[in-house]
Amino acid sequence: MAAPDLGRIVADIYAELAPRIGEGEVADYIPELAQVNPRQFGIAVITPEGEVVTAGDADRPFSIQSISKVFLLTLALGRIGESLWTRVGREPSGSAFNSIVQLEQEAGRPRNPFINAGAIVVTDVAMAGHSPREAIGEILTFMRYLADDEDILIDQAVAASELATGARNQALGWFMRSFDRLDHDVDKVLGVYFHHCAIAMSCRQLARAGLFLAAGGRDPVRGHAVVRPARARRINALMLTCGLYDASGDFAYRVGLPGKSGVGGGILAVAPGRAAICVWSPGLDGFGNSRLGGQALEALARRTGWSVFG
Amino acid sequence: MAAPDLGRIVADIYAELAPRIGEGEVADYIPELAQVNPRQFGIAVITPEGEVVTAGDADRPFSIQSISKVFLLTLALGRIGESLWTRVGREPSGSAFNSIVQLEQEAGRPRNPFINAGAIVVTDVAMAGHSPREAIGEILTFMRYLADDEDILIDQAVAASELATGARNQALGWFMRSFDRLDHDVDKVLGVYFHHCAIAMSCRQLARAGLFLAAGGRDPVRGHAVVRPARARRINALMLTCGLYDASGDFAYRVGLPGKSGVGGGILAVAPGRAAICVWSPGLDGFGNSRLGGQALEALARRTGWSVFG
Amino acid sequence: MAAPDLGRIVADIYAELAPRIGEGEVADYIPELAQVNPRQFGIAVITPEGEVVTAGDADRPFSIQSISKVFLLTLALGRIGESLWTRVGREPSGSAFNSIVQLEQEAGRPRNPFINAGAIVVTDVAMAGHSPREAIGEILTFMRYLADDEDILIDQAVAASELATGARNQALGWFMRSFDRLDHDVDKVLGVYFHHCAIAMSCRQLARAGLFLAAGGRDPVRGHAVVRPARARRINALMLTCGLYDASGDFAYRVGLPGKSGVGGGILAVAPGRAAICVWSPGLDGFGNSRLGGQALEALARRTGWSVFG
Amino acid sequence: MAAPDLGRIVADIYAELAPRIGEGEVADYIPELAQVNPRQFGIAVITPEGEVVTAGDADRPFSIQSISKVFLLTLALGRIGESLWTRVGREPSGSAFNSIVQLEQEAGRPRNPFINAGAIVVTDVAMAGHSPREAIGEILTFMRYLADDEDILIDQAVAASELATGARNQALGWFMRSFDRLDHDVDKVLGVYFHHCAIAMSCRQLARAGLFLAAGGRDPVRGHAVVRPARARRINALMLTCGLYDASGDFAYRVGLPGKSGVGGGILAVAPGRAAICVWSPGLDGFGNSRLGGQALEALARRTGWSVFG
Repeated sequence: MAAPDLGRIVADIYAELAPRIGEGEVADYIPELAQVNPRQFGIAVITPEGEVVTAGDADRPFSIQSISKVFLLTLALGRIGESLWTRVGREPSGSAFNSIVQLEQEAGRPRNPFINAGAIVVTDVAMAGHSPREAIGEILTFMRYLADDEDILIDQAVAASELATGARNQALGWFMRSFDRLDHDVDKVLGVYFHHCAIAMSCRQLARAGLFLAAGGRDPVRGHAVVRPARARRINALMLTCGLYDASGDFAYRVGLPGKSGVGGGILAVAPGRAAICVWSPGLDGFGNSRLGGQALEALARRTGWSVFG
Repeated sequence: MAAPDLGRIVADIYAELAPRIGEGEVADYIPELAQVNPRQFGIAVITPEGEVVTAGDADRPFSIQSISKVFLLTLALGRIGESLWTRVGREPSGSAFNSIVQLEQEAGRPRNPFINAGAIVVTDVAMAGHSPREAIGEILTFMRYLADDEDILIDQAVAASELATGARNQALGWFMRSFDRLDHDVDKVLGVYFHHCAIAMSCRQLARAGLFLAAGGRDPVRGHAVVRPARARRINALMLTCGLYDASGDFAYRVGLPGKSGVGGGILAVAPGRAAICVWSPGLDGFGNSRLGGQALEALARRTGWSVFG
Repeated sequence: MAAPDLGRIVADIYAELAPRIGEGEVADYIPELAQVNPRQFGIAVITPEGEVVTAGDADRPFSIQSISKVFLLTLALGRIGESLWTRVGREPSGSAFNSIVQLEQEAGRPRNPFINAGAIVVTDVAMAGHSPREAIGEILTFMRYLADDEDILIDQAVAASELATGARNQALGWFMRSFDRLDHDVDKVLGVYFHHCAIAMSCRQLARAGLFLAAGGRDPVRGHAVVRPARARRINALMLTCGLYDASGDFAYRVGLPGKSGVGGGILAVAPGRAAICVWSPGLDGFGNSRLGGQALEALARRTGWSVFG
Repeated sequence: MAAPDLGRIVADIYAELAPRIGEGEVADYIPELAQVNPRQFGIAVITPEGEVVTAGDADRPFSIQSISKVFLLTLALGRIGESLWTRVGREPSGSAFNSIVQLEQEAGRPRNPFINAGAIVVTDVAMAGHSPREAIGEILTFMRYLADDEDILIDQAVAASELATGARNQALGWFMRSFDRLDHDVDKVLGVYFHHCAIAMSCRQLARAGLFLAAGGRDPVRGHAVVRPARARRINALMLTCGLYDASGDFAYRVGLPGKSGVGGGILAVAPGRAAICVWSPGLDGFGNSRLGGQALEALARRTGWSVFG
């Protein structure tokens, strides 16, 4: 019964927002991202029953950037379980994603796994003694498995561009190193970090990869357990409180769904029990979140009544 | 069908935690609160269908303290609607509830309505030109209406004690005043603020008063609309991201429900569509949240499956 | 021999800077100060030998504002000696004069006696159990004694204006109160504070009052010891490192003399063994220091070779 | 006439402090420094007339560490003059020497040339397009010239040790790089930085090298001008306001002389017109300054009356 409605809702939202395609500023902090055509907009919604609804550029790969942090976190929790939280907190930071201030005040322990410093620690954990090359391979394998799609690739030009311009992340890495917070060399951790941020995926692929978070930790299509239900809930909780940087509170207020954004213009959102959603449009707002993407999710949550808050 | 289960679950949780009654530190920052007997523990759960389940000291009034901020916010939104957000943000602060640092960096605009500075602004809005006496009367009337109980009172000894010892809140008030962020005199706003924090209610009364947040903005018992559904959702969202100070992320992770704590040892939690819950035990953890209360809510969310995150 | 040179130097500096009278912004944070005619400029230099050289509006009283902090510090050190430093630090703050951030990070203990928070603590010490009225009287008596002039008055309109608009100082006072850093009521301490800031003195009077700092702690004219030589040295040291707020380093670099500025546009400077100097012009630079006053002192130090740095 | 007094004073101070040799904590942040024997103490005083007075271990080379920043600043000012101040400030930071907080708040521009971040920028300027090897050679040549001693060397073990453990400085470098504040590669700048910090000199050599700062910018022994008098004054001013990290205010208060400390336990002080002084003892106080060294300078300034403050 939901199927026709959902198709209609997504199509309506796309049509309503289409005139605004191109709004916002494309991320320019690395050259490769700055070259992306801003006039792109895609939506993909996948339900636990396997229904897939898409609109616009839903099959065009884009740089997932920080959205990868959700999957890295999943991997790292799989690696060392709840002991991860001795190395990174799970509180909103109240600061910009690349801020170093709090890190100094809190002895190099990042506030949560979704700010850059936290994701660097999570990457360090996920490496678990592997070489950077092996670690990157494993992450890519995990993404392909989750998305059920062997065609996912790392955009090497983006990875190289990040490596060449990632001075701020170098600073974060070295700063944590000075507090003995990293097991591996800064260069190696950042190498892996920049590569998983440079994975290119489409809305359809990302929604598919995130479906387990909407389905109690299981891949409902293939019937595999990815994580335990409690872990899926907890990752969703982290996405809701920390997933959109220092606009997380606003996103919770307006949309009411766990989400994770990336400066490539994608946002992965989870409606527990209902659907995994991915929207993408490169133009960003002042917080580094996709402007059209946020609008689309707000409209979708309103029309479907999927907000987790009633 | 849920009824017997819920009664069993609450009874079990109470029984399991009873041996730990007295854990934690009673708030000592005002003399009146410091005198409270720490060996108290109550739980009340109320469903939209009107079912009420209680355990322990669920009918003993305690100082609601910061839990009042949820109701003040409801009043202030009723007064001036979404324009409230020009005066206060809706982001987690990443700082302690009484921090003034961020306030200086952000020109006197508090991060959210649940830190002290934000609640002082919300109080200023809720006063709306009334005298302090009238404003306090109106707030009390609102609480009695929501709880459907005329016996709710302000503990004047607590209010006087807060007034006498509230230097930090005075500092916050004057600081915002220096940025022209308050319409009323600092003394008057704080007078109202200290009084609504000093309202005494039981778990049963608080759960009843918060029931509209679990029921789409309606009082499902009397059939009144308190706020529109979207507003109830949004207040829940704010509770989830900001309701337990700088342990909000952890509470979302462990419990997965919107909540608001007070240093009196109470926590009001909302399971949208399912129940309003109030737990109370005076012993606090290091973040100023009830230690046993948090444990009880974690157990309750786990056994009922009420987490909003799946 | 120095006499004719000094007269010439001061006259030259006045003549060179006269075309720029009116530059800068008059302090507008209290109404009374905002009304001051910006087109005023005075210089007074007094040597230990009793030579007095003046130029321009050197005999017109102006609001000494923060310059009073030097004399309050002298009083407070006389009251409780070096134990004062348990209550206030003696390091540059690296922050604006009215910042509250550091105060939170350092448990309410101000960095030095010349930022507002520090001067409020110093005022609290100088009160020493007196009523505000008595304390204000004593401070005024001290200023008249030092300046050897009974005609010095407090500008009551300025004091009242500060009291009415001093929300930021109220915040600082209450904040320190919350850390138990004040012996007296916030209102009383601020009453005294605002009154001593509102003392009106001329360049001639201020230079005369500060002469003991240039003369090893003695009033060389009357032959009285005001403070021990070591104390005079130390007050000079504090003026040099902290006297011009967060432009103290720049002032030391350009001028090379201990100094203390006020938002009324005055700057008192000390050339140890050589002279006490007061310049005044109401137009301020971005740090709240007299623009023309700073220029005049830089020129004076260069032409006299009075820099303490060689 | 001063000569015999000075000899007596230095001998007395040494004798009085000798029983306390070994107090304080030897810097342990790099392994090579941690191995230094703490039971060493030297004093050297050199006057513009060429008189040299020493006591204790005045001829034993130690790691000059941050004292090198004074000489790097001299070089960089010689390179690009006052335009240096567009790249680094000249205000006390109010923060620890290795803090990164202020750097974030001020867009990567360090507060002054004596905190680590500032010294890294100054090193970048001093390199001026040279290879690291050439730059290091030039600095060493400059130190040998100033000290009039060809035997000064870089302790390669210390330099290597700093390079291996300098994560915090790496973070500072990369952080500034992210704001485009460095002309050269972070690795190269830090290579030079670590090498000039690893220069080994004795008290006698350092006092000799700093003599120009006490003599109006001239080497009074050979009669060479090193810098203009105004520049010597200004470097002295910077040393006084910023030379002992966040204990600079205290040092000015107690000693009253421009100074620059290093974590190797040395302090270079300047009494303009009177003498250059170097003290050394490896045990540090909580701010990273030589404990015995500070005591010795306080006693010396008191007995000679050399304080710049009268």
